[in-house]
Amino acid sequence: MTYGPIDYSVYLVTDRTLAKGRSTLEIVQAAINGGVSIVQLREKTCTTREFIEEALAIKYFLNQAGIPMIINDRLDVALAAKADGVHLGQSDMPLDLARDLVKDSMIIGISAESLTDAITAEKGGADYIGVSPIYATPTKTDTVPPLGLDGLQQIRRHVKIPLVGIGGLNHANAAEVIASGADGVAVVSAIVTAANPREAARQLRQTVKDAQTK
Amino acid sequence: MTYGPIDYSVYLVTDRTLAKGRSTLEIVQAAINGGVSIVQLREKTCTTREFIEEALAIKYFLNQAGIPMIINDRLDVALAAKADGVHLGQSDMPLDLARDLVKDSMIIGISAESLTDAITAEKGGADYIGVSPIYATPTKTDTVPPLGLDGLQQIRRHVKIPLVGIGGLNHANAAEVIASGADGVAVVSAIVTAANPREAARQLRQTVKDAQTK
Repeated sequence: MTYGPIDYSVYLVTDRTLAKGRSTLEIVQAAINGGVSIVQLREKTCTTREFIEEALAIKYFLNQAGIPMIINDRLDVALAAKADGVHLGQSDMPLDLARDLVKDSMIIGISAESLTDAITAEKGGADYIGVSPIYATPTKTDTVPPLGLDGLQQIRRHVKIPLVGIGGLNHANAAEVIASGADGVAVVSAIVTAANPREAARQLRQTVKDAQTK
Repeated sequence: MTYGPIDYSVYLVTDRTLAKGRSTLEIVQAAINGGVSIVQLREKTCTTREFIEEALAIKYFLNQAGIPMIINDRLDVALAAKADGVHLGQSDMPLDLARDLVKDSMIIGISAESLTDAITAEKGGADYIGVSPIYATPTKTDTVPPLGLDGLQQIRRHVKIPLVGIGGLNHANAAEVIASGADGVAVVSAIVTAANPREAARQLRQTVKDAQTK
């Protein structure tokens, strides 16, 4: 990795289908103002061109704030929009092929749904791991049974790279996720569906910061 | 382009949803045996990993036959599978961004639905153009009104790079498409839905060869 240290603490994952009519750009701008530290764009329903155009528009604001932009699944979109990284699930491009294509020019995050996934991802050269799901969540329907804090702690004992918990997280349970060894808390609906995404991000950031200094 | 001359004459575009339960690999193998000269893999419903795995499997057979493999829309899949090229529609990655990413290492084909599209694609450095649709077709529902042979001829008068006609084509109308200036005839259903895809490809190849030597 040629990247400096990445702040994974407050990790927003977008979802336009949950944004209650607000654009992803609008949600991301509010989340930047509220204090998210990293943003992953996830688009499953638009065309490639729409995804690239959205990513280029959002990247402008993220760059100004010094916040990394990660693209979910689509390495083509990440390359075209000169994103900072790509996040790959277990049904996306295999890690070895992705690393071979981008070398050290891009952050690669991997979703791990088990200890085995996590160990494999670290050995394969992932930059960070999304530990998923911590709790049950309505946002993703294709996930396996929740890992819970126990599962997260077990992965933490075996893996050194940054871990980001995801799945059913919000400001009410973020502290226990940090206390269980996560470097960050990833949320979708806690910010995307919030009536005030800026305030939701601010509250989450405060909770995570408090937990990290304990 | 660092590629040698590409034979665009009999251009298969795959569609697993039309294959009547047969795998795309099976259709492509039959089409190779029948004499297709180039194959484009188009997948709109599977995961990225499934698309890459399919492309890698099919590439093995295409390589053996010396036939180029083109990937529809997904430059990430094309890069991961080391495809010979990528085919981009007007809702896919813009040509300039794609060319900037692959330089001269990959063929880039562009779908043109009008004379303006075609001229823009040639100026932008496309390697070939898919002129679409020549006739009305049930395969794609998002296309504009058919260009007809008149539209193809008009594009031929203004554009020098190879043109491949697509949309409602089969061995019964392939000759007139070649006679109107196309370098090749692209088909989906004429091969993919055929009871005998090998024979359908052979027949189409024969028709195109006859038309090219007239």
